[in-house]
Amino acid sequence: MIGQENGLPADFLSDLASAVGAANIRTGAGIAELDPGEDPDNLGASAVISPATTGEVAAIVRLCVRYGVPVVPQGGRTGLVGGGISTAGQLVISTRRLNRIERLDADERVAVVEAGCTLQALQEAALAHRLEPGIDLPARGSATIGGMISTNAGGIMAFRNGVMRHRILGLEAVLPDGSIYSDLTRVVKNSAGYDLKHLLIGAEGTLGIVTRVAIKLDAVPAAHAVALFGFDSVPAALAAIRRALDARVGELRAAEAMWADYFRYAARHFGWSAPDFSMEHRIYLILSLGGADEAALQEELAAIYEELLGTYPETSAVLASSLAQEQAIWRLREESAVIYVDYPNSPSFDVSLPLSQVDDYVRASIAGLAGVSPGLAPFVFGHLGDGNLHIMLNRAEDALTADDIAGVEAVLYGGIRQRGGSFSAEHGVGSKRIHALYATADPVKLGLMQAIKAMVDPGDLMNPGKVIDPSRLPETKHSG
Amino acid sequence: MIGQENGLPADFLSDLASAVGAANIRTGAGIAELDPGEDPDNLGASAVISPATTGEVAAIVRLCVRYGVPVVPQGGRTGLVGGGISTAGQLVISTRRLNRIERLDADERVAVVEAGCTLQALQEAALAHRLEPGIDLPARGSATIGGMISTNAGGIMAFRNGVMRHRILGLEAVLPDGSIYSDLTRVVKNSAGYDLKHLLIGAEGTLGIVTRVAIKLDAVPAAHAVALFGFDSVPAALAAIRRALDARVGELRAAEAMWADYFRYAARHFGWSAPDFSMEHRIYLILSLGGADEAALQEELAAIYEELLGTYPETSAVLASSLAQEQAIWRLREESAVIYVDYPNSPSFDVSLPLSQVDDYVRASIAGLAGVSPGLAPFVFGHLGDGNLHIMLNRAEDALTADDIAGVEAVLYGGIRQRGGSFSAEHGVGSKRIHALYATADPVKLGLMQAIKAMVDPGDLMNPGKVIDPSRLPETKHSG
Repeated sequence: MIGQENGLPADFLSDLASAVGAANIRTGAGIAELDPGEDPDNLGASAVISPATTGEVAAIVRLCVRYGVPVVPQGGRTGLVGGGISTAGQLVISTRRLNRIERLDADERVAVVEAGCTLQALQEAALAHRLEPGIDLPARGSATIGGMISTNAGGIMAFRNGVMRHRILGLEAVLPDGSIYSDLTRVVKNSAGYDLKHLLIGAEGTLGIVTRVAIKLDAVPAAHAVALFGFDSVPAALAAIRRALDARVGELRAAEAMWADYFRYAARHFGWSAPDFSMEHRIYLILSLGGADEAALQEELAAIYEELLGTYPETSAVLASSLAQEQAIWRLREESAVIYVDYPNSPSFDVSLPLSQVDDYVRASIAGLAGVSPGLAPFVFGHLGDGNLHIMLNRAEDALTADDIAGVEAVLYGGIRQRGGSFSAEHGVGSKRIHALYATADPVKLGLMQAIKAMVDPGDLMNPGKVIDPSRLPETKHSG
Repeated sequence: MIGQENGLPADFLSDLASAVGAANIRTGAGIAELDPGEDPDNLGASAVISPATTGEVAAIVRLCVRYGVPVVPQGGRTGLVGGGISTAGQLVISTRRLNRIERLDADERVAVVEAGCTLQALQEAALAHRLEPGIDLPARGSATIGGMISTNAGGIMAFRNGVMRHRILGLEAVLPDGSIYSDLTRVVKNSAGYDLKHLLIGAEGTLGIVTRVAIKLDAVPAAHAVALFGFDSVPAALAAIRRALDARVGELRAAEAMWADYFRYAARHFGWSAPDFSMEHRIYLILSLGGADEAALQEELAAIYEELLGTYPETSAVLASSLAQEQAIWRLREESAVIYVDYPNSPSFDVSLPLSQVDDYVRASIAGLAGVSPGLAPFVFGHLGDGNLHIMLNRAEDALTADDIAGVEAVLYGGIRQRGGSFSAEHGVGSKRIHALYATADPVKLGLMQAIKAMVDPGDLMNPGKVIDPSRLPETKHSG
C-alpha cells in the first residue's frame, strides 16, 4: 500500500518505510482491519505506524516535521473524550510494539516499561513479586501505561496512592522537534531542576510522545475483604470512609460509591440482592480493606459496621464471605456500562469535588438537570474516597439536543471551580471537552498553557485539536 | 528608612510603601535585625518586604517589573543550597505575614494554607483532627509550606507518601509578570489541561512566587513503635524494609539508615548504647510502624526481628519501650549536625539512588573519596526507604580546596544519572548546585528548562542566579 495516494506525500511514506520497515506501516484496508477502540473516529488517519524503539519514534517525528504531517499518538484506544481521534492527512503513531517491561526490580520496587505496555501486563509482572503499580481501572487489559500517563489516569486507588502523575518516577519522551527528553530516574526524590516530566504527563500527546517510564510499585497485601454498605446520607458514607482510614487492622484500598438510582438500576440488572439489606438508601458504598489476614479484615469490617450503627442506626451492610460474593458486589460498580442497555443515548461526565462539596453538588445537579429537560435525571457513581463522580443521564431514545447538552454542562460544570473541583477528573480533555476547559479554567493558566504549546510545538503537529485551541489568543494572561 | 539611597530607586521604595505600607518594608539596619537563617548571605538584598495578601504580592511584582528590580522570595530561610541568597539591588519578598491556615476540613482531609505557614503550624492544626500533611522534616518549626513547595521537599515519609509535589492539590502563585495563577482545586484527580502547578513546584521561586496552596492530609495512626536494627549488609537492611512493608500489623512510616561510621560517631557523641547491640555492623536502620495499638506494633517489630534472624543471624535490634528510648534512637539520626562538632569543614551532599544501587554506590564513594584526598571518608545516613542518602565528609581543620571539591563531586555525582539517581534529592539546586545540574542533567531537559524560564520570566527578575544559568545557550536541545 505504501506510496499510493492516500492524503500523505509518497516521499513521506517511503521515508517512513526506510525508518521503521514497510511492514510496520498500515494504510487503507490495513487500517480498516484494526480495532478503533472506544471512538469510531480514532482511525481516520491516512497511515498508522508502529515503531519498536524510541529512536524509531524520534525518526518518525523528525520526518513529520520535515513534511509537515500532524501526528496522533495512540495506545490502547480506550480514551473517552476523543483524545485519540485522527483524520485524513494525519499519521497515527501506535505504541503497540513499544510494549516491553524492561526492568522490574523487586528490591527497588520500580518498573521500567515502554509506553505501549498494558496496565494488566504490568500488574501481572509486578504481582509475581507481590507488588502492584498502585493504580487500577476497569480498562486494564487494553489501556497502556503511555496512554494512562498522557491522560493522567486515576482509578480506584487514587485517594491513597495519587493518580498516574504521582506514580511516575522517570520519563522518556520524543518532543515535537524529534529530540529525546530523557529523564529515566528511578527515585521519588529528585530536585534536579524543573521537573518537566509533569508537562508531558496529562498533556494527551500534545507536547510529545511518551516512550518509556519508570513507575513506582507498592507491596500488595496478602489478603483483602470487601463490604457493601447502604447509608441514608452522604455524611454517613464519609464517616464510614474516615473510620476505614483509621482501621485497627488493615488499610483501606477502595471506597466506591453508588447513589440510589444507579445502585438500584445495576442491582436490578444483575439480579443482586442480600438478606436484610435495604434497597432504599440514599447512597451505597463499597469498602475494601487490604492486610495480612482475611478473617481479621472481615472482623474489622464487621466492627466498622457495628460502630457506624451507633451513629447511623439505619445503615445496611453485607460482608462478602466468598470470592463470588465479592465479585458480585464489585460488578455493580465496575460494569457501569449497563446503563447503556436502557439508556443508549446517555452522555457521561467525569467530575471531581472536594468531599465537603459532594453531597450538595449531587443534590444541586439532580435539581438542575430536572430544570434542563423534564424527567432528566442522573445516575451517579464513582470514587468517593477522592471525590471523583461519574455521571450518566437517563436518556433512552433520543440524544440530547445541543441546547440541552449546553444546559446540562451549565448545571454540572457551572461553579465547579469555585467549589474547588474539576470538570475533568480522570478522563482528560481530548477533543470533546476543550470548550469545557476554556469555560472553567483560570485564564492565566490557559494563557500559559497556550504559550507553552506554541513554544514546544510551534508547528502544532502533535495531536492537533486536542486539549488546546491555538486559535484562541492568550490575551487574558496579563489580566491577573 | 524608606526612600534613602540603598541600591534601589527611591520612587520604587515609595511605590512599595504605598502598596503594602511602609511598616512592612525593611532596609539597612531593619534588615540587620532579621535572622538570616541557614545562609549568612540570605539577607544581602537592599530591602525586605512582607506582604499580607496575594494581591499585595502581585502589586509588588508588578512594581519590580516596572523598575527592573530582581526579586528573591524567602520563607523560613532554611534552604541548604543558597536558593534564598540575595544581593544589593534586589528585593526580598518574605512570606512571613502570609501565614494563615485558611481552611482545614477534616472530612475533605485537605488544608488550604498561605505560603508562609510553617510545616509545624500545619502539623499541629491537622493533628487536632487526627490528620497530618504526610511530610515531615527536622526543620519543621521554621520551614514554610511555600519554601517546601519551591524546593519540592522530601523528608522521612516520601517512600510512602511521595514528596511535596505529591501532596499539593491546588496552587496559587504570582507569575513574573504580576499576574495571578489561580488553581486552588482541592481534589487529587484533575485532568483539566496541563497541570502547570508542577512547573512552580520545585522551581525555587524562579518562575513565580507561590502564595497559597491546597495540601492533602492523611489520617494519623493512633499509635506507633520504633526499633533500631544493626545489619552486616545493605541487602539485609533492604530485606527488613520489605518485611516491614508487608507488616501483618500496622504500616511502615519511617525507614532511616545510618552507615557504620556515622552511627558510631553519633552514638559516641550522644553516649548511646544498648545491651547486646553490636556497634560493629555495617549499617543501622530505624524502622517505625504506625497503627492502632502500640503493644501490637511492638510485637510486630519483634516478629520482624525474629524472622530476619533466620536469614541474617548476625542482626542486632533494640525495640524502644518508652518515649525516652524512642527519642534517643531518633536523635542519633536526626541530629546529624553533630558531625560539625568534630568536622566543622564538612561539606554535605544529598543524593538519591534506586535501592538496587545504594550498596554499590556507597562502596564506590568510599573508595573514590579516599582517592581524592588521603584519609577523606564519608559519613552516610538518610532515608533508605526512598534511596535518599545524605553524605558529609570528615573534614576537620581545613576546608577542601576547590580542586578537592571538584574531585569529590566527580566521585559522588559521576555516573549518578546512569545509575537512575539524582545528584539533588531534596535540597534543590539553589545557587550552589547549578554547575552540578548542568554537569548531570539531560541536555534536552536543560534546553527546555531554559526556554521555559526565558518565556515565563523574560527579564530574569525572579530569583536570578538560582537553578538556571540563562547565559548558557540551550544549543543541545535539538541534538537528541
